[in-house]
Parts: sequence; structure tokens; C-alpha cells
Amino acid sequence: MKIKTSSKFVAELIGTFGLVLFGCGAAAIAGVDTAGGLSGLGLLGISTAFGLSVVVFAYAIGGITGCHINPAVTIGVLTAGRISVKDAGVYIAAQFIGALLGAFVLQQILQGQLAGFTGGEWAYGSNGWGTGYQNEYGVTAAFLIEAVLTFVFLFVILATTSTVGNSTMAGLAIGFALLLIHLVAIPVTGTSVNPARSFGPAILAGGQALSQLWLFIVAPIVGAVVAAFTWKAIEPKS
Amino acid sequence: MKIKTSSKFVAELIGTFGLVLFGCGAAAIAGVDTAGGLSGLGLLGISTAFGLSVVVFAYAIGGITGCHINPAVTIGVLTAGRISVKDAGVYIAAQFIGALLGAFVLQQILQGQLAGFTGGEWAYGSNGWGTGYQNEYGVTAAFLIEAVLTFVFLFVILATTSTVGNSTMAGLAIGFALLLIHLVAIPVTGTSVNPARSFGPAILAGGQALSQLWLFIVAPIVGAVVAAFTWKAIEPKS
Amino acid sequence: MKIKTSSKFVAELIGTFGLVLFGCGAAAIAGVDTAGGLSGLGLLGISTAFGLSVVVFAYAIGGITGCHINPAVTIGVLTAGRISVKDAGVYIAAQFIGALLGAFVLQQILQGQLAGFTGGEWAYGSNGWGTGYQNEYGVTAAFLIEAVLTFVFLFVILATTSTVGNSTMAGLAIGFALLLIHLVAIPVTGTSVNPARSFGPAILAGGQALSQLWLFIVAPIVGAVVAAFTWKAIEPKS
Amino acid sequence: MKIKTSSKFVAELIGTFGLVLFGCGAAAIAGVDTAGGLSGLGLLGISTAFGLSVVVFAYAIGGITGCHINPAVTIGVLTAGRISVKDAGVYIAAQFIGALLGAFVLQQILQGQLAGFTGGEWAYGSNGWGTGYQNEYGVTAAFLIEAVLTFVFLFVILATTSTVGNSTMAGLAIGFALLLIHLVAIPVTGTSVNPARSFGPAILAGGQALSQLWLFIVAPIVGAVVAAFTWKAIEPKS
Repeated sequence: MKIKTSSKFVAELIGTFGLVLFGCGAAAIAGVDTAGGLSGLGLLGISTAFGLSVVVFAYAIGGITGCHINPAVTIGVLTAGRISVKDAGVYIAAQFIGALLGAFVLQQILQGQLAGFTGGEWAYGSNGWGTGYQNEYGVTAAFLIEAVLTFVFLFVILATTSTVGNSTMAGLAIGFALLLIHLVAIPVTGTSVNPARSFGPAILAGGQALSQLWLFIVAPIVGAVVAAFTWKAIEPKS
Repeated sequence: MKIKTSSKFVAELIGTFGLVLFGCGAAAIAGVDTAGGLSGLGLLGISTAFGLSVVVFAYAIGGITGCHINPAVTIGVLTAGRISVKDAGVYIAAQFIGALLGAFVLQQILQGQLAGFTGGEWAYGSNGWGTGYQNEYGVTAAFLIEAVLTFVFLFVILATTSTVGNSTMAGLAIGFALLLIHLVAIPVTGTSVNPARSFGPAILAGGQALSQLWLFIVAPIVGAVVAAFTWKAIEPKS
Repeated sequence: MKIKTSSKFVAELIGTFGLVLFGCGAAAIAGVDTAGGLSGLGLLGISTAFGLSVVVFAYAIGGITGCHINPAVTIGVLTAGRISVKDAGVYIAAQFIGALLGAFVLQQILQGQLAGFTGGEWAYGSNGWGTGYQNEYGVTAAFLIEAVLTFVFLFVILATTSTVGNSTMAGLAIGFALLLIHLVAIPVTGTSVNPARSFGPAILAGGQALSQLWLFIVAPIVGAVVAAFTWKAIEPKS
Repeated sequence: MKIKTSSKFVAELIGTFGLVLFGCGAAAIAGVDTAGGLSGLGLLGISTAFGLSVVVFAYAIGGITGCHINPAVTIGVLTAGRISVKDAGVYIAAQFIGALLGAFVLQQILQGQLAGFTGGEWAYGSNGWGTGYQNEYGVTAAFLIEAVLTFVFLFVILATTSTVGNSTMAGLAIGFALLLIHLVAIPVTGTSVNPARSFGPAILAGGQALSQLWLFIVAPIVGAVVAAFTWKAIEPKS
């Protein structure tokens, strides 16, 4: 089945839009307890939002693009030789646009609060580190955890979608991997492992979120490239 | 296999009955901490109740009706040309009756509390917005989030059940999509994306819940119709 | 493949043992916050324990017995004509013995607390209702919710394992159904829908738990039998 | 497809590395509430981290090694006659090295906190029992729960991967079994059922964690061996 480039573009855009709307939206709208007395999502609920977003879009658009919705994934898959440079460029453009659009819709909703919205230094679920961000970890810990977790993420993606994986369950396993990554890393960096997911909120939040954006582009790409070479080294040959 | 219309009617009725009993029931019976000191479900637990209800009924009645249990889904699927007008009418009637029945059973249980039941302005898990409802968002934010989230929901439904989807996993992905939608939207509207789910509790609660019911009929339908046209535009042709 | 009756007996015994150890154990050992400051499982965690127990044993022993691990399920399946009376008797005997054994191991562990164990009137995760039990609902609400939820449970079981179900996903859907049932009913009755699961803890706890045991035998059976007739009425014929 | 021993070694190493990084990392980094006011993972979130780690690696490396990532699993599978002694040795060596590496990375991240890190007597998610550990259970209860839960774990593993299991769903069921095990046992021992998972943190934490390590080697092996004989006794023959 031939799939049009425009369909791939729209699919990656909607998928990344959804990832930011669900994941960052869960953090920004529902992270803490409600005025009505319901417990907020906390670390487990926010992690669930990011992880299940990947599960959902893997089964929705996986047949169209493979459901990357993350430039680090696209670069890892490109390094492993499973996608063309042209398609990779289309995917990455769609991912950044979709993420920005997701953050924009989130901003519009948050500004609809009757009491007004004040998101602080790292609004809209932005990633960051250092004084005033979550549990206050330094830049070295932030870089280390983002690179190592993206390494594990790409290793899981390349393995589950290989000939020794199970094509029915791959989407579930990959989404659960992202969920696990969030379970560990939110107190450190808010968890990115995805340059586009960090880009959308940072553009609208500005300030520290924007000045710290570089780490969430560099560290995930480093982890992704190392994972691609590692997987190629141990991949069973038929 | 020929399936009788009466079987379809009963299946959609029981499915929507279960969605309201589990979803709205989780919110109304178990949302906050118990007298015995157990943590209440909060936003994550209530979201899980709605999402897994769709997973469960997708595998129970999916083979009979496709498990819509939501008039916005039926209208989206009708717009995409995958169901007859007659069946759509049967489904929608069953959904409203099932939802009302679910809310009625929930009411009977809640009134069995020894200390008596006082549910307030938006009882039985009713949807709403504005002063006094959850985190107090305005009507514009309420409409925007309901329409956008129903758009994503129908996009996921139409994509996962298309020729590029995975028929074994579609039910899980669709239910997880509804779970995600609740993770984001409960503080804003309580989360509907389903006119029947809003109808049942509103009829029994009356007051604000009933006067605000229109939004939870209009916004989901708008989102569903737009999603159907979007999916048709990018759907891969074999 | 011919399966020995003794294998069926052991499989149902271990499955019901596990359901009680995991489900009631989660409630009794880990329901509330730990001394070390970790949040307890609360309603969502306890519900997850019961629901996933069914998922796990469905895939472990489903190929041996169908994984009933619940006398109400066995009676519903018998009413639907899918099991012999002899096998039903073997299953139910194994279920009660396994549940008692699970409660016994749980008792031994709890008594290993250095500060000593005082479980109160409804120890070991016992079911109950009325003054002093959870959110204090009356006997009518308790009977209604147990009967209605067992009806939905058996409807889901019979539908997902029918010719219009998906055999790969049935175990997941059935376990998620039990999870949903717990999300709604713990504040009312602690949630049974399973005479054996109520029997084990009640025998060891005595007192109120034992004197209220009858409801958790009668109400689930009523719901199960009605579900069997309902499903037979709408089941598609090939 | 012939799989190289070095590939098996790397796969088991990365899997066990990931299990410790995600599971122990969730407990040590994200177990309690954040400075920013988000609810910590608590018992449910930490259990989810361990359980889903097995789900993820089961689908990633299951086609290479069967995804043991646990010496007790390898010994149980060896007892059941499904693996060679040579492979078992390679797996177990990789598991201990991977676990130690995971705990080391976790240590580096935790020491990156700006306020400094003080992990106490049982740092890095170490297992233990007795005065000062979680809810303070004695050594008998600790041994009993570790042995019984490993018995159930291995029974589920051997059953779901047998000829009466479902190969697509086995990884999910096995991971959910580990999740259930954690739901029950964290207040007692922190939950091991895995000598390598206990080894990594104990080596770096020293003190009580190291002096209590023996129990988390002996009890899981006892449970695993008994489970292997039990399963062989009831396994259906084709």
C-alpha cells in the first residue's frame, strides 16, 4: 500500500499534537489536586498520560508512519537504516509543528480559567532543571538521565519492531517504556527524551524553559544514536 | 454472521449502562477518600474507570455493534460512511436509555448510604463548567476542550479500525484514548465527549447539570464530524 | 489435549489462592500509607490488585480450566451450558480451598509484624456493609451493587469468550472488568462478586465478616444466573 | 535463527540494567512527593515501575533470551528443563552485572541533587526487613512472603509460556504478575523475588542492605524450584 507524503505529514503532526496535549496537558491542567477535592494526577498519572499517548497513536498511525512523534526516535531509526532521509525530514518538521500546536491549544484552555492563569517560570509542562525546577537536580544529572533513558527507549523501539519482536504488542511495549521513563525522570527534568515535546511548551513559556531547551535536543539525540549502534551490534540475523 | 437489530440494541444499551455505572459511579461513590482511610480514586482513578469501560465493552460487544456506546462516535462513524442511518438511530436510542438506566442504578445505590446522600449541584458524576464546578473554567474553554478531544478520539477510532489498524489491539487503544481524554479534561468539564454519558446523570441531577447539557451534545458532535472528514482525507487507499 | 481432573483442581486452587493473596493482601498489607512515608494503594491500587490477578491467571491457567477462580463465574458458565456439572463441582471445591489457603498465608504474614497485628472487625480484606464498614451503606445497597456488578461481570465473560469475542484479548478484558467493579464498589461492600474470595477471609476473621458472608454468596449467584440468560437471548448464531 | 551468546549476554544485561534503573529508580527518585507539589509514586507507582519493566523487556528481548532478567527465573526455568546449564550461567552473570550497573547510574543521578543526597540505611531501593525498614516485619514473614510470591511468579511464567499459554500475551501477564507481587510485598521487604535486583543496590548501599542480602537470594530460589516441580506435575501433555 502506497502512502502519500502528505498523509505521513498529517499523521505525525496529529500524533505529536496529541502527545503534547495529553502529556503536557495532564501535567499543567490536572497535575495537582482539584478545587473540588479530587487528588491530582501526580507523578504516576502524568507518566501514564505520556506513555499511553504513545500506545494510542502507535495503533492509530503506526500503519502510516510507524508513529515516531519524536525527532530522537526518527534520528535513531534513521541511524539504524530503516527510514529515508527525505521521510525523516518530513517527520521531524511535522513533529515540531504538531508539538507547537498542541502547546498552543493547551495555552488557550488554561487561559480560560475564571480566576486567570499564572503558570510560572516553566509553564505548559515545560522541561528544565536546577534551582526552582521540581526536586532541583544539576545539569550533569539532567543530561545523564535524558541520554541514558533515550538510549533505553530507542533500544526497546528497535528491538520490539525487529524480526524477533511481536508486531501486535510492539506499540504497547514502546508506550509502556515511555511511561517507565517518566516514572523515573519527572523529579529531575520533567522528562523529555523528545526534542519536539520540549520545543512546543518552551516556545510559549519562554524564559528558563527556552534557555534550557538545548539539553532536551542534544541529550536525547546522543542516547538515540548510541542505541541504534548497540542494537545493530546484537541484532539476530536470519 | 447476521446479527439481529434487537441484539444490537441490547448490546449498546448494556455497554452504555456499564460505562455510566463504572465511570460516573467511580466518581460519585469512590472519588474521594473513604471513611475507613483509603485514598479515593482522584483524577487518575476516575479516568481509568471511563477508559477501561470502553476497553472491556469493546471486546465484549465489539463483535455485535462495534461498541460505540456514545452518540458522538455513532455520528462520526456515520459521517465516515461506515454505518447505515437506521442502525445509527437504533444505537443512539439504546445509548441514551442505557445511560439513563446506569445513572438510575447509581442513584439507588448512593441513596443507600446510612448517613443519607447529598450530591450537590452536579450529582451522579454530571458534567459542567463555571463557578463551583471543579477548577472553574469558562464556557469557551469548556467548548474548546470538548470539541478538540472528541476530534482526537474519533480520529483514533477511525484510524485504529481502518485497514492500516490492528484489529486485535484497536479496542485497547480506543479505551486508552478515552482514559487520556479524562486525564486532561476532568478539572475543566468533568470530561464528556459523549452526549449520552452527560444525559443520564443530568436528567436525575437537574439544575445546572441539566441547563449545561447542550454543550456536551453540541461540542462532541462538532469534533466528531471534523475528525471523520480529516481521516477520510488522509486514509491510505489499498 | 486431554486435561486431567487433578490438574484442573490444582490450577483453580492456585488461581484462587493467588487472587486472595494478591487482592486481599494488597488491601490488608498495603492499603494505607507506610511507616516509611510511601502513599498506600488506596482504592485504585486495591482495584488494580484484584483486576490484574484475573488477567494474570487467565493467561496462566486459562488453557487448563478457563480460569474461573470464582464460584459465581462457574455457576454462570454452567447456566450458559458451557461446562459439565462434575467439572463445576471440582472447580468450586478448589476455589473455596484455595481462597482459604490464601487467607491463611496472608494471616501468617500479617502476624509477622514486629509491632503485632490488630485487624479489627473485618480483617484480611473481608467484605461487609453497615455501620463501621467503609462508607457505611445499608444492606439493600450492598445487595443491589453486588448483584448488578456480577451481572455485568458475567455478561462480559460470556460475551468475550463467545464466537464474536477475541480469544487473545478476552483475559485482559475480563480482568479489567473486575478492576472496574472494584473501582465502584469498595466503599460499599469492599467488593466481592465472588463467594470464595469472601469465604477465605471471613472464616479467619469471624465476627461480622462471617455473619455477613451470606450476602456475598447469594447476590453474586443471582447476578450471574440472570447474565447467563441475558447473553443466551442476544448471542449471535452462526 | 541462531542467536550468538554475546547477544544473549548483552540483552540480559541491558534488561536487568533497565529493571533496576526503572524499578529502584522510581522508588529512590520519585517515591515521595516532589518539592513542586506533585504526589509521589507511592506503592502503586513503584509497583507499576517494576511490573511494566518486565512487560517492556519481554517484548524487546524475549525473542533473544526469553527475558529472564532475574536469576530466580533462570534457575526455575533450568529446573523445568527448558534451558541449558551453559546458557543459565551466561544469563545469571549478565543479570548481576546489569543490576550493578543500573544501581551505579542511579547513584550518579541521585548525587546530582543540588541539595546533596542522603539515602539512609537502605539507599537506592534496597530490599530489607526489621526495625526501621518500611512497616517493620520480622525475618520469618520476610522469608515466607518472598518464597511464596516467587513460587506464584514462576508458576505463572512456566504456565503462560507453555503449550497451553498464549505467546502474544505471555509477556504482559508475566509483567503484571510482578506488578501484583510488588502491590503486596513492598511494606514487608520492599519486594525482591530477584537476587540480582537486590544485589545491585545492596553492593552500593552497604550496611544493613548488604547484611540482609542473603534472604533475597535464598528465598526466591526456594520458591522458584518448588514452582518448577509443581508445574511439571500438572502440565497438560499433548
